[in-house]
Amino acid sequence: MFLPSVPRSSDAVVIRDGIDLSMTEGGSTMKAVVYQEPFSVEISEVADPRIEHPNDVLVRVTSTAICGSDLHMYEGRTAAEPGIVFGHENMGIIEDIGSGVTSLLRGDRVVMPFNVACGFCRNCMEGNTAFCLTVNPGFAGGAYGYVAMGPYTGGQAEYLRVPFADFNCLKLPANGEHETDFVLLADIFPTGYHGCELAQVSPGDSVAVYGAGPVGLMAAYSALLRGASRVFVVDRVPERLTKATEIGAIPVDFSRGDPVELIKDQTEGAGADKGVDAVGYQAQVADASREEPATVLNSLIESVRPTGRLGVPGLYVPSDPGGPTENARHGMLSVEIGRMFEKGQVMGTGQCNVKRYNRQLRDLIIAERAKPSFVVSHELSLWEAPGAYTKFDQRVEGYTKVVLHP
Amino acid sequence: MFLPSVPRSSDAVVIRDGIDLSMTEGGSTMKAVVYQEPFSVEISEVADPRIEHPNDVLVRVTSTAICGSDLHMYEGRTAAEPGIVFGHENMGIIEDIGSGVTSLLRGDRVVMPFNVACGFCRNCMEGNTAFCLTVNPGFAGGAYGYVAMGPYTGGQAEYLRVPFADFNCLKLPANGEHETDFVLLADIFPTGYHGCELAQVSPGDSVAVYGAGPVGLMAAYSALLRGASRVFVVDRVPERLTKATEIGAIPVDFSRGDPVELIKDQTEGAGADKGVDAVGYQAQVADASREEPATVLNSLIESVRPTGRLGVPGLYVPSDPGGPTENARHGMLSVEIGRMFEKGQVMGTGQCNVKRYNRQLRDLIIAERAKPSFVVSHELSLWEAPGAYTKFDQRVEGYTKVVLHP
Amino acid sequence: MFLPSVPRSSDAVVIRDGIDLSMTEGGSTMKAVVYQEPFSVEISEVADPRIEHPNDVLVRVTSTAICGSDLHMYEGRTAAEPGIVFGHENMGIIEDIGSGVTSLLRGDRVVMPFNVACGFCRNCMEGNTAFCLTVNPGFAGGAYGYVAMGPYTGGQAEYLRVPFADFNCLKLPANGEHETDFVLLADIFPTGYHGCELAQVSPGDSVAVYGAGPVGLMAAYSALLRGASRVFVVDRVPERLTKATEIGAIPVDFSRGDPVELIKDQTEGAGADKGVDAVGYQAQVADASREEPATVLNSLIESVRPTGRLGVPGLYVPSDPGGPTENARHGMLSVEIGRMFEKGQVMGTGQCNVKRYNRQLRDLIIAERAKPSFVVSHELSLWEAPGAYTKFDQRVEGYTKVVLHP
Amino acid sequence: MFLPSVPRSSDAVVIRDGIDLSMTEGGSTMKAVVYQEPFSVEISEVADPRIEHPNDVLVRVTSTAICGSDLHMYEGRTAAEPGIVFGHENMGIIEDIGSGVTSLLRGDRVVMPFNVACGFCRNCMEGNTAFCLTVNPGFAGGAYGYVAMGPYTGGQAEYLRVPFADFNCLKLPANGEHETDFVLLADIFPTGYHGCELAQVSPGDSVAVYGAGPVGLMAAYSALLRGASRVFVVDRVPERLTKATEIGAIPVDFSRGDPVELIKDQTEGAGADKGVDAVGYQAQVADASREEPATVLNSLIESVRPTGRLGVPGLYVPSDPGGPTENARHGMLSVEIGRMFEKGQVMGTGQCNVKRYNRQLRDLIIAERAKPSFVVSHELSLWEAPGAYTKFDQRVEGYTKVVLHP
Repeated sequence: MFLPSVPRSSDAVVIRDGIDLSMTEGGSTMKAVVYQEPFSVEISEVADPRIEHPNDVLVRVTSTAICGSDLHMYEGRTAAEPGIVFGHENMGIIEDIGSGVTSLLRGDRVVMPFNVACGFCRNCMEGNTAFCLTVNPGFAGGAYGYVAMGPYTGGQAEYLRVPFADFNCLKLPANGEHETDFVLLADIFPTGYHGCELAQVSPGDSVAVYGAGPVGLMAAYSALLRGASRVFVVDRVPERLTKATEIGAIPVDFSRGDPVELIKDQTEGAGADKGVDAVGYQAQVADASREEPATVLNSLIESVRPTGRLGVPGLYVPSDPGGPTENARHGMLSVEIGRMFEKGQVMGTGQCNVKRYNRQLRDLIIAERAKPSFVVSHELSLWEAPGAYTKFDQRVEGYTKVVLHP
Repeated sequence: MFLPSVPRSSDAVVIRDGIDLSMTEGGSTMKAVVYQEPFSVEISEVADPRIEHPNDVLVRVTSTAICGSDLHMYEGRTAAEPGIVFGHENMGIIEDIGSGVTSLLRGDRVVMPFNVACGFCRNCMEGNTAFCLTVNPGFAGGAYGYVAMGPYTGGQAEYLRVPFADFNCLKLPANGEHETDFVLLADIFPTGYHGCELAQVSPGDSVAVYGAGPVGLMAAYSALLRGASRVFVVDRVPERLTKATEIGAIPVDFSRGDPVELIKDQTEGAGADKGVDAVGYQAQVADASREEPATVLNSLIESVRPTGRLGVPGLYVPSDPGGPTENARHGMLSVEIGRMFEKGQVMGTGQCNVKRYNRQLRDLIIAERAKPSFVVSHELSLWEAPGAYTKFDQRVEGYTKVVLHP
Repeated sequence: MFLPSVPRSSDAVVIRDGIDLSMTEGGSTMKAVVYQEPFSVEISEVADPRIEHPNDVLVRVTSTAICGSDLHMYEGRTAAEPGIVFGHENMGIIEDIGSGVTSLLRGDRVVMPFNVACGFCRNCMEGNTAFCLTVNPGFAGGAYGYVAMGPYTGGQAEYLRVPFADFNCLKLPANGEHETDFVLLADIFPTGYHGCELAQVSPGDSVAVYGAGPVGLMAAYSALLRGASRVFVVDRVPERLTKATEIGAIPVDFSRGDPVELIKDQTEGAGADKGVDAVGYQAQVADASREEPATVLNSLIESVRPTGRLGVPGLYVPSDPGGPTENARHGMLSVEIGRMFEKGQVMGTGQCNVKRYNRQLRDLIIAERAKPSFVVSHELSLWEAPGAYTKFDQRVEGYTKVVLHP
Repeated sequence: MFLPSVPRSSDAVVIRDGIDLSMTEGGSTMKAVVYQEPFSVEISEVADPRIEHPNDVLVRVTSTAICGSDLHMYEGRTAAEPGIVFGHENMGIIEDIGSGVTSLLRGDRVVMPFNVACGFCRNCMEGNTAFCLTVNPGFAGGAYGYVAMGPYTGGQAEYLRVPFADFNCLKLPANGEHETDFVLLADIFPTGYHGCELAQVSPGDSVAVYGAGPVGLMAAYSALLRGASRVFVVDRVPERLTKATEIGAIPVDFSRGDPVELIKDQTEGAGADKGVDAVGYQAQVADASREEPATVLNSLIESVRPTGRLGVPGLYVPSDPGGPTENARHGMLSVEIGRMFEKGQVMGTGQCNVKRYNRQLRDLIIAERAKPSFVVSHELSLWEAPGAYTKFDQRVEGYTKVVLHP
């Protein structure tokens, strides 16, 4: 999930899912990763989640991953208040079940999309589950453990309450296999795939993917699964470019030259057929000296041929207090719209509708035709989460993707 | 056609289709609308066009329309040099035929897309005929009578040479009916329709169309033909809004309030399902005091609901020397990309691929289910073209859409 | 709905929703149209439906239509046992509401698709709500008041239980307008539209629709709403052909000639662009002397041009004890598959996924761009149902589409 | 290509491209595979092809494959008359060029679709190049070297005339690599892919492919390239099933059990998501004792889940004098249409539009992500063609796919 950094301010969105200590008195508790203050999370005891609605289930979490978007909150760049439980990439075993749930049983092994969705609003019905109109009133879309995304406690914890469970749980084989692959179905594998869907990557296409972080690698991997002929992956971190090469992509090191020219050189001057922006607004200039929010978007427009399509799963936000310009602070970026029009390109944007893809991607994992866990660098216990956050935030010791096993 | 204002400069694109006077010596000539200098066209004698390639035909022009984009050249805001023959909205009767032409006969009544296209390059094969890779080397796309769009003399003249004629001629019934409807198949009817196609307007949709000029009205008309439930048309010119009302659209007068709010008020706060920008970069603020190139695009993003689609047939250019800011002069506009991402919108852009739609729209005209000529304000002889340009440029006496009959 | 005639036999499907008289003892009752024996229905007292599951609502029925497929049961050609309450085209006001329902309130005016669907199974998620895997175990798809379509009592009654109510109820304006249009959203308007969707009817297309019964007329009407240029409607009943003419279609009377030739004559010998079979397996030869189950399907193949698409909402069944041949009795018909292949046609089949279209069609009704009630011949009270069944079955006195108001 | 067996009769289609001996007198000649009589082809001298139209090119053939459909003519089961030059799977080097050709040069290495197509008729423009309305008047579609497919001499010869060359030639890298892969772009690789396109095979799908001949293997291979999770390939020939296994498909031996049950057993009883019929009307019963033309089609309907899609590139013909029943002889087969309707399946049929896919598949070969030549069993000289036909016809010595190098 690429999720927004909501500005921290006095009139900030109230964290509706903070710990209500009164609830824990006399009640049972569980351990969870709780945000304390900028650059600090702790393992705390919080109230056990409970069935609150007939369509809820309760899941005992077996795997939950830390996402790059968790770092937005961790770094104190959002309105997240102390007490919030993190975690939107969750899987586990169903422990308890509401009276209205139809298709699930205790003991079922399930993975949940990061999006919380109702399944019956207009957007959900059309497959746009990232823009559910029900679960987060006043906004289109909800998620677990994220500021401003609705009252849904995160899953970096022992248990998780899942609303509209028939719709939000994807069943997995009971045999315990592929745990680290399946947990990636909650977010980054579908999100990378979504970039390809927005760009309509088709068999034979050449594809330019900007960014070789976890989502960029998943986008490149998805492009190859969809039959792309050549996938260019643009980054400057050697380890990431190596990973890209290992899965069959073509590395483009933008610290060594203009990536647009490097891609054009390999596509007879025309540019790639399709492009994916897996970086978003926190894009930096080549020497990493400063952010230039529209640089990847504009490079993408230049890297893709006329009539090509651009998929933008990388996050752009309507409000960014840390933006380098007044316009950028209001989410208005200097986009090469004239060039895009001249080329007749189509650009698709937005959070991933995980539910649209997770079953199919699960089936590829089960058939052993996909193994996305190659991006996972660390598997840790819940106790190790605080240290993992520190190292992941500092990008040290190869911390690229951490999966916690509570 | 929305065509670019190419900057006039010393290193301007050479007008490859200017009059070569040597050609006319000893040869036959015809009358044509010839650009003289800014704000001046004249009816001059120019060399008759000839069959130059086995796949050419020669058309005796019976109708040719003046397009808003002709005014870019007329006003001297492009690199167009004196001598260029205007006219890209052309229909007529085939007079001569190359040895390689297969499907056409002398006497056939035909209308030509404004795009010149080869029919066999990759883009043409995929239906993207506005981005032909053959007809205008170094650029994707060609047109008749337009600066920088290739060596194709315009059709505001007695005769027109049509290259790749089997591909570029659409046959019409011989009976002479619907002349003024059919000539609109060259450009503005398909261009308005293209806006709806880019926005994927579907039966039942509510649609916001910005601009009630000829293309905007054609977009609104097309949306209704496609089964839209409600079409909001935003403009401030009373006559235009009246026209919109007459075809069944809902007028939104942006001189009387924020069009975004006016549209949201009529869509339960959600915004329209789809949106079309039929204005482009020369958008003005509400009191018409100055241009604000991204204002329509950003209003469109705000006017359309989350997961909606935006069709942008309105022109945006990569270079606009008269732009109000340095960025604007380079075709980089401050786009609300953060808001667009948050809403998960998809935006389609670019010139119309006329060939994709003209047969179908012709059939609607023949069946009398469409009558686009309601936008035509004047039908004149070729001799009246100079005066018509003046009045059309000044928007006087109801000059909204002029068709010339040479 | 075109629903199957299930063979009546000793090992027939058990009617799971028959009246359990013990339920009515001490409980409250309501009036309903109850099947007695072939050619007989009565208004009887049956047990009131109740909220049985947290996701149910109870609807007080204000309008419920009789469908041609109800006659299959009425005529005793199915396994329906006495006691079944008919009615799958239902609308009304919500009277009671389960504890798990989220989006509905008492007093909401709603219309329900004839399909009962869960909203979360794989088929529902993909929009294939006519093939729900949850509501009718062992079969893909469920419906109200129909033999073998699951335990869902019909709505030709005072009250109706609606399962998975958040998913199955479409909200309507409270003002009471358009009642007779809205009730057609339960089945025949979407079903006719579905034929066009299966055939991918697009603006400008010519379309051949076989059958001018209620569904055929809705298909023709939908084709025109979608922008078809010409719609040929094939039937032999003068009143039906007159109706077709009134909505703008072109009547083709197959009692006066081969409809294939009549359509080819009007399409330059090529055939229509698209075709819809709104007749199904009970097709008759031109003089109505006998059924010839594949005759419409084969005429459709011949009537549509190479590369055209065929939409088949008209019913074909896997078992038809009354079929004229041994193969026909097993749902195997002599289809011109060689000709279809030579023409490269695509054929889409199946019951309508009402939920995919009902919101959009509702919006067209509200905007007064569609008024499907032109097919309704009679509006009656529930008490008049027995007589209406008799007359509808005999096609007398203009009984083409009856809406009951309980 | 799956091409029809046209009945041989006295009023048979005249072979328009037979050898006109007068042409060869005084003119130059070339060697070609010429049909003599049933079960006999010879290498004969025939007139060199010449540029006949400005849009023609002449190709020196470097590779040309024998197709299963050539055997229809070879076995004397068609109206093909002695003298016809076989060969519709052709590639080579351009030797001469017409005056109207724009995009090609002498020396270009090219491969031609088996379909001859104009590029500008309505069907070609929509990508339906197998149904060209220009090249074979009175029929939709043309091909090289095939009876009733137009006056286009085959390419099992030293030279080949290619009409509408800009449209019909696909350029290949000059380096001479991948010769045996590229020649398969003329027909069977795209034809197998077309089956997947008709069935809309998408990432994660399970797919049932009937037939493991060259086209069936190409369909299975294409399904995997498109990201299918599991591909079941049904055949009974051990060598073919071994090949299927080698490319990653799951073999289903229908001599060992009902393939429908074998597939359902591996798909939780539901059936595969999509299905491809790569057998056609010459399908045989399990013990190969007799043909049963609809058996594969009906098995496909049973093998695919409700709402699934069926791609039928396998040939069905409107006239088959050797058909086992009167109906079959007229291309009318007993299809389980009732079951198909109940399942709401969509079936796409028809010859492959090679031009829609050949560029993309070429790019996969160049990028070494596809290597279809695994199906080629023999590469021979033109002189060896007569023997190859005999052995291929008898399916001996592993003759499954023969490429000739003239």
